Amino acid sequence: MKALVYKGPGQKIVEDRPTPELKDATDAIVKITKTTICGTDLHILKGDVPTCSPGRILGHEGIGVVEKVGAGVTTFHSGDRVLISCISACGRCEYCRRGMYSHCTTGGWILGNVIDGTQAEYVRIPHADTSLYRIPEAVDEEALVMLSDILPTGFECGVLNGKVTPGATVAIVGAGPIGMAALLTAQFYSPAEIIMIDPDKNRLEVAQRFGATKTVNATGNKATEAVMNLTAGRGVDTAIEAVGIPASFLTCEDIVAPGGTIANIGVHGVKVDLHLERLWSQNISITTRLVDTVTTPMLLKTVEAHKIDPTRLITHRFKLNKILDAYDTFGRASETRAMKVIIEA
Amino acid sequence: MKALVYKGPGQKIVEDRPTPELKDATDAIVKITKTTICGTDLHILKGDVPTCSPGRILGHEGIGVVEKVGAGVTTFHSGDRVLISCISACGRCEYCRRGMYSHCTTGGWILGNVIDGTQAEYVRIPHADTSLYRIPEAVDEEALVMLSDILPTGFECGVLNGKVTPGATVAIVGAGPIGMAALLTAQFYSPAEIIMIDPDKNRLEVAQRFGATKTVNATGNKATEAVMNLTAGRGVDTAIEAVGIPASFLTCEDIVAPGGTIANIGVHGVKVDLHLERLWSQNISITTRLVDTVTTPMLLKTVEAHKIDPTRLITHRFKLNKILDAYDTFGRASETRAMKVIIEA
Amino acid sequence: MKALVYKGPGQKIVEDRPTPELKDATDAIVKITKTTICGTDLHILKGDVPTCSPGRILGHEGIGVVEKVGAGVTTFHSGDRVLISCISACGRCEYCRRGMYSHCTTGGWILGNVIDGTQAEYVRIPHADTSLYRIPEAVDEEALVMLSDILPTGFECGVLNGKVTPGATVAIVGAGPIGMAALLTAQFYSPAEIIMIDPDKNRLEVAQRFGATKTVNATGNKATEAVMNLTAGRGVDTAIEAVGIPASFLTCEDIVAPGGTIANIGVHGVKVDLHLERLWSQNISITTRLVDTVTTPMLLKTVEAHKIDPTRLITHRFKLNKILDAYDTFGRASETRAMKVIIEA
Amino acid sequence: MKALVYKGPGQKIVEDRPTPELKDATDAIVKITKTTICGTDLHILKGDVPTCSPGRILGHEGIGVVEKVGAGVTTFHSGDRVLISCISACGRCEYCRRGMYSHCTTGGWILGNVIDGTQAEYVRIPHADTSLYRIPEAVDEEALVMLSDILPTGFECGVLNGKVTPGATVAIVGAGPIGMAALLTAQFYSPAEIIMIDPDKNRLEVAQRFGATKTVNATGNKATEAVMNLTAGRGVDTAIEAVGIPASFLTCEDIVAPGGTIANIGVHGVKVDLHLERLWSQNISITTRLVDTVTTPMLLKTVEAHKIDPTRLITHRFKLNKILDAYDTFGRASETRAMKVIIEA
Repeated sequence: MKALVYKGPGQKIVEDRPTPELKDATDAIVKITKTTICGTDLHILKGDVPTCSPGRILGHEGIGVVEKVGAGVTTFHSGDRVLISCISACGRCEYCRRGMYSHCTTGGWILGNVIDGTQAEYVRIPHADTSLYRIPEAVDEEALVMLSDILPTGFECGVLNGKVTPGATVAIVGAGPIGMAALLTAQFYSPAEIIMIDPDKNRLEVAQRFGATKTVNATGNKATEAVMNLTAGRGVDTAIEAVGIPASFLTCEDIVAPGGTIANIGVHGVKVDLHLERLWSQNISITTRLVDTVTTPMLLKTVEAHKIDPTRLITHRFKLNKILDAYDTFGRASETRAMKVIIEA
Repeated sequence: MKALVYKGPGQKIVEDRPTPELKDATDAIVKITKTTICGTDLHILKGDVPTCSPGRILGHEGIGVVEKVGAGVTTFHSGDRVLISCISACGRCEYCRRGMYSHCTTGGWILGNVIDGTQAEYVRIPHADTSLYRIPEAVDEEALVMLSDILPTGFECGVLNGKVTPGATVAIVGAGPIGMAALLTAQFYSPAEIIMIDPDKNRLEVAQRFGATKTVNATGNKATEAVMNLTAGRGVDTAIEAVGIPASFLTCEDIVAPGGTIANIGVHGVKVDLHLERLWSQNISITTRLVDTVTTPMLLKTVEAHKIDPTRLITHRFKLNKILDAYDTFGRASETRAMKVIIEA
Repeated sequence: MKALVYKGPGQKIVEDRPTPELKDATDAIVKITKTTICGTDLHILKGDVPTCSPGRILGHEGIGVVEKVGAGVTTFHSGDRVLISCISACGRCEYCRRGMYSHCTTGGWILGNVIDGTQAEYVRIPHADTSLYRIPEAVDEEALVMLSDILPTGFECGVLNGKVTPGATVAIVGAGPIGMAALLTAQFYSPAEIIMIDPDKNRLEVAQRFGATKTVNATGNKATEAVMNLTAGRGVDTAIEAVGIPASFLTCEDIVAPGGTIANIGVHGVKVDLHLERLWSQNISITTRLVDTVTTPMLLKTVEAHKIDPTRLITHRFKLNKILDAYDTFGRASETRAMKVIIEA
Repeated sequence: MKALVYKGPGQKIVEDRPTPELKDATDAIVKITKTTICGTDLHILKGDVPTCSPGRILGHEGIGVVEKVGAGVTTFHSGDRVLISCISACGRCEYCRRGMYSHCTTGGWILGNVIDGTQAEYVRIPHADTSLYRIPEAVDEEALVMLSDILPTGFECGVLNGKVTPGATVAIVGAGPIGMAALLTAQFYSPAEIIMIDPDKNRLEVAQRFGATKTVNATGNKATEAVMNLTAGRGVDTAIEAVGIPASFLTCEDIVAPGGTIANIGVHGVKVDLHLERLWSQNISITTRLVDTVTTPMLLKTVEAHKIDPTRLITHRFKLNKILDAYDTFGRASETRAMKVIIEA
């Protein structure tokens, strides 16, 4: 089968690989219908993810059709249309029982990382019963590709951890795909204001169409100043960090109101300054989270009920044999205005 | 009346001052029966608290008897025995309505800071109806002095923010008075382990008597190593920072388990390093809080019901005219083994 | 001044009454601008509310302008435009501190019940600081009349107690004004389905315009059957009782799914059957609540931010001197299609 | 193997039965070490549980050693010492993912009900990975038998649903084994008062030794009166119903304070009167729950840490071949003063 393979920092190729086989009784083999590329895939290609070795088929998102299942799989059968979660969860370990699938002792983020992933014609899914979701009839398949990772990530790490409530004031620092996912799902809770902060003007225009009530085209102190003006000096109840660099975390520290929350979604590469000398008395919370995908069933219901349209995140479409073009388009997002690209297998 | 007055960095004297008068309709004048000294008073004396000007009567803790009340005070009357909260709360502003008394727009921590405090024979208490608490019959008065600040601080900032639960593993970094208050109140929730960390051997012995299940007589990496050994490499569900320096916050970052919480009680003077490059994926929460004293009614009930004995924190007793001795004893705590000192007016 | 006065069961008149005076230091006198009639006022007129004696000026909703305030009032001043809460809260007692204003030991629902109310030119408001809310600039005044009672009641007793979540299935039994308030505010949380149940076809049409996703024009077993069909036999996550009779509570018992909640808003006159022989193992919650109006600040923000338009509830408008006509129209709601009537003072 | 078999209403015998075999890939066969008898077993014997047919081996509690496991079982191996949960959970269905194992679509309470149970030498456990718990070293085995059902039931249905908090006032109606389990686990949260209500004097004496702060030797109106006296007319924050009859539910309705919770543990056979005409405005919650056993890992930690000693519930011990004597002793509890009986296989 064809697969996109990581060959070491800066290198990737489309290769012919053997179709994966069942290994454990709890595995399923899924024929991929549609997949996509994540910002994390670009991190791997930069050599920033040491757990991912050369030779790995990338990809941890996608939908497909179950080809075969192991003896221990009870929920799915050959022919079932399924959504693949970016997080593999055994459903049995202490972390899974607490709903912290991200830290499953034999799972977590392993797809396209420590085992072969979804940017291929077939993929082996461990812990299939608790890592796949049946696709409801009459739901757009492309919408569901957004439920593998980006939508639960924005929702769980940004919106739920950020405790967004009706009438609240929210700021999202970073209007990339993950910031947009937070923007779309924050609206489930009817906040009064969602202020989107990004240096890219195009992305702010998109954010406005997606429901941002205010936009701030600036970074650093200027962004802080703008947010403080927009909030009458109060700051925001929820500051969502969706970039992953010290400067944007600092903006969050500067704009969070007393009693507020800073919810980190960004993948950070270096430490940040935490100004406890100012914040110790401000009654704030700071949260971090690798997505658990425990809200996937809830998100499926909101998509079915048309409470959210995840296809708005999709800007480009490619066939699997053009996946290198897809990477190129996605990698030059500021030029191409790419958000999420669909790859059809 | 006699009062302990801050005269600028490093200077304090006992002075004769006019008895305070009612100023606002919501004020009460309270005759102090017993007061105490807080670590924050020492901070003021070092010149670290810019809001507190020379000439200020210090002290934000104590119990007493209501002398007179303003026209707008409905709950208290002359002669009522009352507990004085370290936080003045109007009960009306947006923050008070959210239970965030610490950020009351016309209150918060003002006693012995921006207005005259309790280390005197009398004190004016603004917002009396919502800043005083009636003293139940048959409760030890000295126990209640611990409810002005230290017990709610350890409980709200450490235990509640730290989400201590039955069966959980808790570490408290710092076995000073505030760490001890966290230790005593953490036991309300029956955690499986409470590991106390401090370089002072005497304090760890006290901690063990107060209910710590394990003690670690070390700091920095050695403390981290010890905690990881005690927890089979898992780390702790709740790490309570009760010192206020970068090193102890770093210990908390190093020992918190995935899904855990770092609850800051310490008053920090400088920024700290937050290792988001490691913690971004660890599903942790970090909280800060200036005590709100919203749990004072709950704590009163636990004291009445003998679920906790706050007098265990009291090591020394002085008369008001010997308050300079009390400061001396409290200031040399490692030598004198002082925890909380009672000053009788 | 003119006032609508209850004269005993079945009797009400418009009477000239002396303008109210300040009584306590915490009082305010408010000149009424707009008020409305509540279903509870009709209950009083039937003689069903024994706490309300003949001679009482009715009404517990409205907006106005502060005329004068007592010595203990610090937040409001003569000339302030204010929203009057149906619940008077001292902000000081144990219940107020817990956010249970409805059970304030010197307040609660007293206006137009045990003290004179708002269907008059002026009203005395006890505990003014914590029972009035400043009206934001640029917000429709009529919208705010809905925030005195009906909107917080639907929201707190129905939506919050009912734990409505994104993707959930909600049923509201009763499409009167209070059911409609629940319908409007339930949408803050993006449930997948809101099923409205009522025997009145017109009200269901209105409900559909207000956001109901399904309507059931039936009662009793037929309504149950219809809801079970609409939910594939699962039942609903949240069943909101908005009538106040045994039959509609029974419908809620019959349609609530395992793990679901029955949230009562209706004012019940007789006991109901609770089928614990079936429900003991169904992991359900049943809640009751007299509105606390603790969410008024949150609701004000949602109105300001246009997340909700409460004026949609308003069907008729009258001058104060025509208030008997207003009662007549409101009392014959099924004929007149009245929901909420505005009375301009 | 020997097994206790239900033979229809009023009839039970000890019979020789074939040792159970693996049926599904997710099954385990467990050799029973110790088991016990539940009040529910007596209900079955009265013919009150229609799902349980004659010929069924009874019992849903116990500990043992894994004999063999199916191909899909990954967590347990032959030789593992395990605790058997009374609730079988697939860990995969919508209810299991929500932590509502009691309503698992292919599990729930099936052991000793719709499939053969634990009062035998061996038992087949479906969904073994998520229905068994590894036994920690150095924990008393008899203590763990109490963790199969009675302790999680008292804790989840009574204490957690009842929202017991530090300083709260709790009443438990019914001092049988399940009320005692609630009493023991309520103390995890340091309530100020736990009032135990029962007509049996001996049981109240036991309750006092187990930590009840007050006891009421009465039923009905007299019990209500006594509780109101003990609480200065306020009533209780949490009323736990641990009997399962209308009279004891009524007592709970009568003693619950405004804002309080009635948590039902009792298995009810008939409907009860819910006095909404009085309670509609009292801001109360009523909960029901079939135990989910989601807290088993937490309870294991509290037992390991000696925060609770479940062996206190054990009054009698029998060998499996004397199980009919055990039933006799347990069935005449008021005479024999039996609470829980241990049966050694």
